[in-house]
Amino acid sequence: MRISELGGETALVKLIQEKFGGATGGGLALGIGDDAALIEMGGSFLIVTTDLLIEHTHFRLDMNEPYLLGWKSVAVNISDIAAMGGVPTYAFVSIGLLDVDVSVVEGIYQGMRDASERFDSALAGGDTVGSDCGIVINVAQLGMVEREYAVRRTGARPGDAVIVTNTLGDSLAGLELLLKHGLSTARGISSALVERHLKPIPRVDEARAAVTTGSVTAMMDLSDGLASDLAKLCEASGVGAVVSADDLPISDNLRRGAEVLGRDPIEVAASGGEDYELLITCDQRSADRVIAAIEGITGSSATKIGEIADGTDVVLAAADGSRRPMPQSWQHF
Amino acid sequence: MRISELGGETALVKLIQEKFGGATGGGLALGIGDDAALIEMGGSFLIVTTDLLIEHTHFRLDMNEPYLLGWKSVAVNISDIAAMGGVPTYAFVSIGLLDVDVSVVEGIYQGMRDASERFDSALAGGDTVGSDCGIVINVAQLGMVEREYAVRRTGARPGDAVIVTNTLGDSLAGLELLLKHGLSTARGISSALVERHLKPIPRVDEARAAVTTGSVTAMMDLSDGLASDLAKLCEASGVGAVVSADDLPISDNLRRGAEVLGRDPIEVAASGGEDYELLITCDQRSADRVIAAIEGITGSSATKIGEIADGTDVVLAAADGSRRPMPQSWQHF
Repeated sequence: MRISELGGETALVKLIQEKFGGATGGGLALGIGDDAALIEMGGSFLIVTTDLLIEHTHFRLDMNEPYLLGWKSVAVNISDIAAMGGVPTYAFVSIGLLDVDVSVVEGIYQGMRDASERFDSALAGGDTVGSDCGIVINVAQLGMVEREYAVRRTGARPGDAVIVTNTLGDSLAGLELLLKHGLSTARGISSALVERHLKPIPRVDEARAAVTTGSVTAMMDLSDGLASDLAKLCEASGVGAVVSADDLPISDNLRRGAEVLGRDPIEVAASGGEDYELLITCDQRSADRVIAAIEGITGSSATKIGEIADGTDVVLAAADGSRRPMPQSWQHF
Repeated sequence: MRISELGGETALVKLIQEKFGGATGGGLALGIGDDAALIEMGGSFLIVTTDLLIEHTHFRLDMNEPYLLGWKSVAVNISDIAAMGGVPTYAFVSIGLLDVDVSVVEGIYQGMRDASERFDSALAGGDTVGSDCGIVINVAQLGMVEREYAVRRTGARPGDAVIVTNTLGDSLAGLELLLKHGLSTARGISSALVERHLKPIPRVDEARAAVTTGSVTAMMDLSDGLASDLAKLCEASGVGAVVSADDLPISDNLRRGAEVLGRDPIEVAASGGEDYELLITCDQRSADRVIAAIEGITGSSATKIGEIADGTDVVLAAADGSRRPMPQSWQHF
């Protein structure tokens, strides 16, 4: 049976988790299946997350710049650290390279170093190897979180508010502009949307502001898109959710970009992908306090977009009360 | 300037280390440039190492089995943990896959889990992604070592004994048989040599036995081959070395395999690659004690092969007193 017949990436991860993940216990507080693993170290948790990027599959250098590729490869891992409520500490970079120009490698590392330094992390080691199939980058990122602030995906309860940071869908619109028009023209149409796709800003400060309220019940970062990621959070917590289509935070840039693309901005925001915003649940009565804490970070906003529900369905509700499944996010295999 | 013009992989790693490695300090006791990084955690060091393997570049499935591929991908990382004097704890596996048969993925993970369990480590997380260029595996391995037993590459002093564990060159001979004859015929010629290449055994117990004598001045694992790795150890320590050709530990299997291959067994052992044995230096007067400690591990041996010298030259000395440079190990780019 091929991976696609098994049910794709999600089904494969579940199989690996069940058959080979081993039991948590000993020092391992949280293993395969969340944004990152938690390992007990003294009074705190060491957080470990890792992300693999393969040229042609996950990025194309004709639609990117080495610096931005480096930035993003570190930033998406720092986003996973943020999703656990922690702060990043050290990154370990494995890189596979053809015999490319050294300036390409330097550009990638400059981006990785800048993304690290921006969030008080550092490049601490790695592996450099030849590659016969283009550039391959793996970042393993470490972080730390105090035991009382570590947040998992599993704590959402029916009635909880569902909150997201900033705006959704900008990155997907940026990607679609890139794929349709190429880097230079896409930037001419909307440099802001292209930037949201190529240079994501992990929400470390916003996550810390949220978890230190003590009210967050579950959190993750939006890497695969709201539809897919909210479904994962709900499955992990054993709940469903209702998202209000009218409450999805949509930027003016996305409205304009969606028009150029002939796309429904709500559809783009709900399916999304690579937003690297935070998806947070908390008790309804704490929602305003959590939102206020996040909005205390300069330039950041937070929006209540729905509610955790009984059952297992994750649905999108229109203003007229009609409900439909969340638009599908994109999957590999 | 291309990587090959810069001077290949070694020159590139040096450039990355100097320009982007950042200073060690804070919690980082040892960064880019050794087998692994050391991070202070309580009274001990957290060890982190990572290794990237790309299909067609680093392995071919027509000359391997998924189980052995999984075993080796974890084992080579555990070998880096051993090289620092530590014990492995948790592995984080990133894997990129085409839409292959699920049994291939299960085979890989079985091998990874078995290699982990054999050394009291566990699979604790990772990333599973699609790949348009065959199978890509990155393992990030954590380990721990007591502060007093952590060993670097930098401590070798002129006059120190140079010791290696077990025998050298078997893995390279196994690889050459595989490349020349394919998996099945190569196993017919020498299943032992092929096994040494496809299923390396990291020398965790041997390394612990050595470092707990308190006499080891420098240590690393032999991944690139004795010639290349001893040159790295010497450069890191600011010394040279003389290796006695007649003292290189050569297995009977290698002698037979070298005959089939038409190769000089000393040449094969000295250039080597992927031995995953330990390269150890210690004070001459402690050499017998270090060797005895290693030989206390069932099935393991250790041999004094030479001496650390003043200067920077690393040479191979024949019984007649003639000296020549160490045979070149293989490099990417």
